[in-house]
Amino acid sequence: MTHKIAILGASGYTGAELVRLISGHPNMDIVALSGERKAGMRMADVFPHLRHMQLPDLCRIDEIDFSDVGLCFCALPHKTSQEVVRELPASLKVVDLSADFRLRDPDAYQKWYGNPHAALDQQREAVYGLTEFYRDDIRGARLVAGTGCNAATGQFALRPLISAGVIDLDEIIMDLKCAVSGAGRSLKENLLHAELSEGYNAYAVGGTHRHLGEFDQEFSALAGRPVKVQFTPHLIPANRGILATVYVKGDALAIFDTFSAAYADEPFIEVLAFGDTPSTHNVRGSNFVHIGVTADRIEGRAIVIAALDNLTKGSSGQALQNANLMLGEEETTGLMMAPLFP
Amino acid sequence: MTHKIAILGASGYTGAELVRLISGHPNMDIVALSGERKAGMRMADVFPHLRHMQLPDLCRIDEIDFSDVGLCFCALPHKTSQEVVRELPASLKVVDLSADFRLRDPDAYQKWYGNPHAALDQQREAVYGLTEFYRDDIRGARLVAGTGCNAATGQFALRPLISAGVIDLDEIIMDLKCAVSGAGRSLKENLLHAELSEGYNAYAVGGTHRHLGEFDQEFSALAGRPVKVQFTPHLIPANRGILATVYVKGDALAIFDTFSAAYADEPFIEVLAFGDTPSTHNVRGSNFVHIGVTADRIEGRAIVIAALDNLTKGSSGQALQNANLMLGEEETTGLMMAPLFP
Amino acid sequence: MTHKIAILGASGYTGAELVRLISGHPNMDIVALSGERKAGMRMADVFPHLRHMQLPDLCRIDEIDFSDVGLCFCALPHKTSQEVVRELPASLKVVDLSADFRLRDPDAYQKWYGNPHAALDQQREAVYGLTEFYRDDIRGARLVAGTGCNAATGQFALRPLISAGVIDLDEIIMDLKCAVSGAGRSLKENLLHAELSEGYNAYAVGGTHRHLGEFDQEFSALAGRPVKVQFTPHLIPANRGILATVYVKGDALAIFDTFSAAYADEPFIEVLAFGDTPSTHNVRGSNFVHIGVTADRIEGRAIVIAALDNLTKGSSGQALQNANLMLGEEETTGLMMAPLFP
Amino acid sequence: MTHKIAILGASGYTGAELVRLISGHPNMDIVALSGERKAGMRMADVFPHLRHMQLPDLCRIDEIDFSDVGLCFCALPHKTSQEVVRELPASLKVVDLSADFRLRDPDAYQKWYGNPHAALDQQREAVYGLTEFYRDDIRGARLVAGTGCNAATGQFALRPLISAGVIDLDEIIMDLKCAVSGAGRSLKENLLHAELSEGYNAYAVGGTHRHLGEFDQEFSALAGRPVKVQFTPHLIPANRGILATVYVKGDALAIFDTFSAAYADEPFIEVLAFGDTPSTHNVRGSNFVHIGVTADRIEGRAIVIAALDNLTKGSSGQALQNANLMLGEEETTGLMMAPLFP
Repeated sequence: MTHKIAILGASGYTGAELVRLISGHPNMDIVALSGERKAGMRMADVFPHLRHMQLPDLCRIDEIDFSDVGLCFCALPHKTSQEVVRELPASLKVVDLSADFRLRDPDAYQKWYGNPHAALDQQREAVYGLTEFYRDDIRGARLVAGTGCNAATGQFALRPLISAGVIDLDEIIMDLKCAVSGAGRSLKENLLHAELSEGYNAYAVGGTHRHLGEFDQEFSALAGRPVKVQFTPHLIPANRGILATVYVKGDALAIFDTFSAAYADEPFIEVLAFGDTPSTHNVRGSNFVHIGVTADRIEGRAIVIAALDNLTKGSSGQALQNANLMLGEEETTGLMMAPLFP
Repeated sequence: MTHKIAILGASGYTGAELVRLISGHPNMDIVALSGERKAGMRMADVFPHLRHMQLPDLCRIDEIDFSDVGLCFCALPHKTSQEVVRELPASLKVVDLSADFRLRDPDAYQKWYGNPHAALDQQREAVYGLTEFYRDDIRGARLVAGTGCNAATGQFALRPLISAGVIDLDEIIMDLKCAVSGAGRSLKENLLHAELSEGYNAYAVGGTHRHLGEFDQEFSALAGRPVKVQFTPHLIPANRGILATVYVKGDALAIFDTFSAAYADEPFIEVLAFGDTPSTHNVRGSNFVHIGVTADRIEGRAIVIAALDNLTKGSSGQALQNANLMLGEEETTGLMMAPLFP
Repeated sequence: MTHKIAILGASGYTGAELVRLISGHPNMDIVALSGERKAGMRMADVFPHLRHMQLPDLCRIDEIDFSDVGLCFCALPHKTSQEVVRELPASLKVVDLSADFRLRDPDAYQKWYGNPHAALDQQREAVYGLTEFYRDDIRGARLVAGTGCNAATGQFALRPLISAGVIDLDEIIMDLKCAVSGAGRSLKENLLHAELSEGYNAYAVGGTHRHLGEFDQEFSALAGRPVKVQFTPHLIPANRGILATVYVKGDALAIFDTFSAAYADEPFIEVLAFGDTPSTHNVRGSNFVHIGVTADRIEGRAIVIAALDNLTKGSSGQALQNANLMLGEEETTGLMMAPLFP
Repeated sequence: MTHKIAILGASGYTGAELVRLISGHPNMDIVALSGERKAGMRMADVFPHLRHMQLPDLCRIDEIDFSDVGLCFCALPHKTSQEVVRELPASLKVVDLSADFRLRDPDAYQKWYGNPHAALDQQREAVYGLTEFYRDDIRGARLVAGTGCNAATGQFALRPLISAGVIDLDEIIMDLKCAVSGAGRSLKENLLHAELSEGYNAYAVGGTHRHLGEFDQEFSALAGRPVKVQFTPHLIPANRGILATVYVKGDALAIFDTFSAAYADEPFIEVLAFGDTPSTHNVRGSNFVHIGVTADRIEGRAIVIAALDNLTKGSSGQALQNANLMLGEEETTGLMMAPLFP
C-alpha cells in the first residue's frame, strides 16, 4: 500500500531532506508540498538537486486537500507550526518537526520559547518523537513531536546512563559541536560562508539554549527527580553533523556496558569499541548514531561522545522513522542508506 | 536473483563508494573485498562510515575464490589493474575503474601513461564504459573500462554536439574544476586540508592531463577526423564534484536543441532550461548529470556547462550502471538516490 | 606627517580590510568611520577582530567634519557612492571603491548599471585606479575610481599583451574563479555556508557581468579599436582569492617575455617561471599578484593565469596603494605584509 | 640595530609563519634557513607565498655559520630538537618551538614523550615561554621553550584563576577545539581535505594528550599542590585557531574581575565584556588572545572561553614575542598586525 504524504514547509532544509529520504521509500508518495512565500514555484527551482523527481509544485497550505493524505510532515518554523497543526483535520496523522509540541508543560514551553502555547489540546496529545525510547507510544500516536537535533544527540548519550543509575546526575557537562544546517536557511551574517568558514565559536553559552527544555523534561522524568545538565553548543564550519562530548562521573566500563545492552538491538545506533571515538564524518547523510565511551585519566570520570547528522537522524530521518511506525511500515524502510564519505 | 560481487581495491574512495551504492542495491551481495596493504582489517576500521554493514574483511586478491563471483569491480591503481585483470578468470565479468583499458590504441596508452601495456588481449576486448553512448556494447561485454571522471564530464558536454556537427571542432576550450576526491586517498602535501582549503589553482596546464587521451580518442572517432580540445583542470577546495565549462563556437539554440534531443530519454542526464547554469551542489552523492547551455554576448559562441559527482557518475556510479547492464538488471537499480544538499 | 583618514562604509568587508591595512601604516590615522545603519555602534561590535584598535565609533556621513581629513576612502555600495561623493568637499581627496566612477562613458555606465549617472562632473574628473598602469595620473588625482576585483585580475593578465600586440584580440576567453567575499556582506541564500561550501558554479554566464564594462573600456583604449573578451566568472567555496584562467592565441614565450619586461620593476607583481602555475593560496591577505604563462599543446595557443586576493589587491589594498601615491607616500607603505599561509 | 636570525626547520608551518612575521619586523634579518630534506631548495619553491621576499636558500644545519647569528629559532620536530640544540654554540640565544624543553622534570618528559631526554643540561637552563607569565625570566634567558599551542590557550584561560584561588581546582574540564595546522605538515589520511573537511571529532580522549604534561606542571606549581585537569581536544575543519571552552566551579563575576585585573596591561590579551563569547574568526593570523566569561544557569559554575591562532600566538608569534624580549626589542614589535577577516 502506498501512503499519500504531504509536507508543510517544504522550502527549508528539513523539508528538502524529507523529500530526499522519501524518494527512496517504496511505499510513500508525495502529493502535496507547501511553502507559503514560494507558493506556485516548482520544487526544481527552489531545490535544483531535486529536479529529477516528479513532485507537486509548492502551494499554500490552504490549497491542500487533506482528505486522502495518509500522513503530514510539518516542517514549519516554531510558533507557526502550532497555529497550523491546530487547524489540520483532527484525524490526520502528523509528524511535527518544530519545537512546538516537544515540551509537555505549558509553563516550560512559555519559559523557553517566550510565548503562551496556542494549541494546548494538540500539545497534550503529542508523543515525544525520540523513536528508540518512545517506540510504542509513537506507533499509536496521531501527533508526534520531533525532537530538537541537539536534544536528540544528548539524549542518545545520556538516557541509558540515567536510567541505569551509573552516573552522578548533578555533574553532567555536555559540550556540543553542531554544523550550520541546524540553523536552517536563515539569512544571518554569521551564517554566511565568508563569516563561518575557517572559524568556530560557542553560542547560547551559560544554559540559554532552548533544547535545554527538552533535556530538563526528559532527564528529570527518567531520574524521577530534577536533573539539570550544563550545555554549551558550538557552531562549527561544516554543513551537517552534531558531536556531543559529554563529561560524566561514573565508571567508564559500567557506562560502556550500559550502552551495549541498551542499544544491542537498535538498527540505527552503533556503539563503538571501548575507547574508540566517533566522528561526524562517518554519519553524514545517514540515519545512524555513533557512540563512544572512554575512561578519563582521572578515576571515576568518563567521556561519552555521540555523533549524528542533524538533518537526518536529528530531524527528517527521525521524522520518517516515526512516520514508518505510525503507518505500520517497517521502522527502517527508506532509512538504511550508507553515509556519504568523503 | 542475487549477484555475488567482488571489489578489488576496496580501501580507496571509489571502492568505498561502490560499497555505499551496492548497499542500496536489492540484487547484489558483496562477497569479497580486497586491499593488499590493509588485508586482514575489517572494513569498519578502514571506513568507519560503513560499520553498520555486514561486510567481508579485507583480503589479498589471491585469497579470493572467484568461482561463484558474478561480477568483479576492479578499483585498483593504474598499471596495477592491468596486471591483476590479466590474471583473473577469463570468463569473469569485470568492470575496471582504472585508466588501464580506456585507450584502444596501445601507442596512445604508452604516450599518456608512460609504460607499455601489459594486458593487450584484455585491452582489445574492453568496451569503453560511458554508458549513455556505449549501452549496447556494454550489455554484452565481459570487460568494461570505466572512463576518467573528467573525461566523462567533458564527453557529456560535447559528444552530441560533435555528432550533430553544430560546433567548430577546432575551437573547443574546456576549463574544468574538480574536487579533491578525484585525486584519491593519496598522501600529498597539496591535498592536505591546510594546503587545499581556502584556495584553488590550475594543474596539468597546457594539455598534459591524461584524460586528454580519452578526449582525443572519442571525439576523433565521433567526428571521423582528428579533434583536439584545449583542456585545463583546476583543483577546487571541495570533496566531490566536477564542473566543466566548455567554450564552443556554434549557435547556442541549436546546441541546446541538440542536447534536448540527445538526452530526452536518459534517466540520469538533466538538461536545464536554456540559459540556466548547473552547480556541483545539486548533484553531490548522486548519479545525475546537469547540463546547461548559454549564448555568449559574442555572436556565434556558446558556453556549455556540465556538472556531476566525480565519485558517483564519474566513477563508481557509472561502474554500477554498467554492471547492471552486464548482469541483466535494470540500468538504474541502486542509482536513483537523490543528491545530498546541503 | 600623519594623514587623517576617513572611511565611508566601514561596516562592509572592504571597509574592514581598509582598517586592517591602515593599522599597519605608519603615517595614517583613522579619524572617522561611517556606517549609516550601524551608526553609533563601536567597530569592535561590528568587527570584533578589530577590537584591539583605538577606532572612532561608526557614525553617519553627515556627522563627519571633513575639514582636516586628508583623504577619504569611500567603500559604499554602487549608486549610493556617486550620491555621496557628489556632496563631499570639492577639494577632498577621495579613493572610491565602488563601481560608480570606473566607466568614463556615461552611456556605458547606464548600459551596465541600469541607471543614469548622478555625478557626471565627478565622473569626468575620476582617474581609473589600476595603479600599475595609471600611476602618474593617480599621483595627481583628486578622485580615484578603484577597479572591479575581477576587472583588476583580468587586466593584469592581459594589458601588457594587448599593448605589445602579441595575442589575437578577437579570441580572448577568460574563465575566472572568485571567492565569496567579492559578493560583500550581502544576505543571500547562495552565500550561506550551507549552500556555498562543498560546491561551485558559474554565474553571470554569457557576458552579462558588469566588470565587462571595464574590460571593454580599457582593452579597447589600449588596442585603439574595439576589443571584446568572453568572460565567465565562477563562485568558489573560499573566502578570498580570484584566479583568472585566460585562453589566448599567440606565442607563449613571447607572452612570457612581454610580462617579464612589463612587470620587471613592479613591487607587487610576481611573474612565475615559464610553465609554473599560480594559486590563490599564495596571495591570501596580501597585495601581491602572481602570474603564470604556459604553452598549450595546440600550437599558437597559451594559457595565462593570474591570482590575487580580491579584498586586498583587488580592492582595499589597491585603494591604499593609490592613496599612498595621492598623499606623496611611498607606494608600498603598509602593503608589504606577506600572504597568510596556511 | 639589526639582529641576524636563523630559523631551523623552515620548511614546516611554524617555520613559514616565523618568516611571515619577521618580514614585518624592522630590526630582524633572516640569514639562514635550514630544512634537512629540502636543503638546496629555494624557499619560494617550498612556500610560494614567500616568493616576493629575499631569503637565503634552505640549507643543512651543519652548513650554517652561527658566529654572527643573534638568535636562532628552532622549529624542528620533537626529539630532533634536543639533539640539535645540544650541539649549538653554548652562547647562542635560542627560542625552541618544539616540546623538548617545556617540561622541567625529566621523568615527566619521559612519561609524556616516551624517551629519555637527550639534552638535560639545556633542559635545566630553559625558561618556559609563556611570555605573559614568564616575562622577566625570558628577558634574561639564553634558551626559551615555546609552549604547546593548546597548552598556551588553556593557560591563558586558567592561570589567573588558579593564582587568585577563585575556582575549585579539582573540577576543571577543558574541551578544546583546534584547527588542523596544529598537526603540522604531516602526511596522514585524517588530515587530507577529503577526510577532514565537513566533519569533526575528538582525539586523544581520556587524558592522553601530551600538552597535559604542561598543564600539570604549570597549574600544580601555581597552586602549590597537584592540579589535574580533564582535557579533550577536537579536530575541527579549519586551518588556524584554537578555542578552549573551560568549565569551572566558582563565581563568574569574580572570575571576570580576576581576568580584567590580570590582563589589564597586556597588549595581546583582550578580555571581552562579561557574557560575550570569543570566536577563532576574530584572531586569525594575529597574536591576540580573546577571552570571555559567562555564568552558567547552574549557580556557582562558569564557562571561560579563550581563542587564539595556534600558529601565531600559539607558536611562532609567541616565539617572536619572546625573541623580542631576549634581544632587548619592544615586546610587540612585528606583532601588532590585525587579524585577517574574513
